[in-house]
Amino acid sequence: MRRFGINASRIHHLFISHLHGDHVFGLFGLMSTMGLLGRKVPLHLHGPKRLHEMIRDHLKLFGPLPFEVEVHTVPARDTPYIYEDDKIRVKAVPLKHRTMTFGYLFREKERPLNMRKESIREFGLGIEEIARAKRGEDLKLGNGTVIPNSRLTHPPYHPRSYAYISDTLFDRGLVEVIRGVDLLFHEATFAGKDEKLAAETFHSTAPQAAMIAREAGVGKLLIGHFSSRYRDQSMLVEEAREIFSETYGVNDGEVYSVPLERESS
Amino acid sequence: MRRFGINASRIHHLFISHLHGDHVFGLFGLMSTMGLLGRKVPLHLHGPKRLHEMIRDHLKLFGPLPFEVEVHTVPARDTPYIYEDDKIRVKAVPLKHRTMTFGYLFREKERPLNMRKESIREFGLGIEEIARAKRGEDLKLGNGTVIPNSRLTHPPYHPRSYAYISDTLFDRGLVEVIRGVDLLFHEATFAGKDEKLAAETFHSTAPQAAMIAREAGVGKLLIGHFSSRYRDQSMLVEEAREIFSETYGVNDGEVYSVPLERESS
Repeated sequence: MRRFGINASRIHHLFISHLHGDHVFGLFGLMSTMGLLGRKVPLHLHGPKRLHEMIRDHLKLFGPLPFEVEVHTVPARDTPYIYEDDKIRVKAVPLKHRTMTFGYLFREKERPLNMRKESIREFGLGIEEIARAKRGEDLKLGNGTVIPNSRLTHPPYHPRSYAYISDTLFDRGLVEVIRGVDLLFHEATFAGKDEKLAAETFHSTAPQAAMIAREAGVGKLLIGHFSSRYRDQSMLVEEAREIFSETYGVNDGEVYSVPLERESS
Repeated sequence: MRRFGINASRIHHLFISHLHGDHVFGLFGLMSTMGLLGRKVPLHLHGPKRLHEMIRDHLKLFGPLPFEVEVHTVPARDTPYIYEDDKIRVKAVPLKHRTMTFGYLFREKERPLNMRKESIREFGLGIEEIARAKRGEDLKLGNGTVIPNSRLTHPPYHPRSYAYISDTLFDRGLVEVIRGVDLLFHEATFAGKDEKLAAETFHSTAPQAAMIAREAGVGKLLIGHFSSRYRDQSMLVEEAREIFSETYGVNDGEVYSVPLERESS
């Protein structure tokens, strides 16, 4: 994170998929560094039930941190979302792995509509009328004419979405949950030829990740969590691209942005 | 370790100084990786009492490893050595830090003497006589002449030694324990001007590390564990060198060798 210029003090929520070392051991050092950097505000951790036990044992042994760590256990039953603020909602997605594991689906909320400045002038709108227009209402003029909302406001922004799916057995049941997300990370531990090994270890292959992406009609697929057995990992990206062309193999520090766009007017 | 080509399967003993994050969090990932790489042989951990608790909690939460982890608690009372094999002995050195902390002193044992091949021929030595010479005994010929051992064997190798001292308050009591070691690592968290801060946090300054090295008459001093507050860490090396010229600031991956040399004959 330091190498890539990420400011840890701006991180308030961490979503942990499961308690395997490659997904959680970094947390100890991260929390310790946050403390050294002077963090005072709480850090919220979301994850499977035993995360609470892990943090409790850790703090017992290494002493308290200079900030509060709040552990939020992700419920096993399906809930619409596990976290919400003014901009996004986060839904937990149960995955099929060797231990209790969750993926996470991040969805932006709809933003309030932006006014067309020229309409404010044209119709001489007051505060009340602007507020109504921002909520999507049409404007009724004194003479009974109705001005449709689309003349008062710009087309809304498309609420962006990102799904993080790691680690899991190939599971077509995911398709409905993540349908149409702009960006999907899906683990691809193995190559297609090692499908049997993938199933045995509750992991997915690159082609399987691509099938999920294609069936769910996502915008872009990021794959990673590659097994170190493959010297040339570009091969996994290639075989996924044969199924879903918008596939990218991800490396530490790379940034994939979903542009903020207005829906076509 | 992977970046520097270090083979983890050749590591059998780890000596942990104390349970602060920057000294112990890497252990979880290391053990996990050792398991993934197929380790079957036991791993021995030496360290303060609570190390046992840490490993126990860890294995309870993350499941057993495919190899045994044996935790050896370093006793609080002084003992000649805590580990011994056919080549070395390791002594624990209690340090003065905010939690129970040990430095470690690694000393090679004396190697058996090497025979001078020409003497074997000259005196027609048998197996018995060679064994006695290798133990340092002189040779008594049939005519009563005594051949001194130095004519039969090469001068012995100088047994090498290395002391690892991190983290600690400046402690002159260390001088006697580490006297004359070939290589000393001594923490130097702070610059000389921050001596007060060093004392408050139970750390040492670079000049203090150099004073220990000078008084103990060590061969070479390595300093590190620098606080991130110093942008130019070479300044700490410079001020240590004013007191002890053979001082080096260490970075990950650097190798400092102590050559194997025969004592002057």
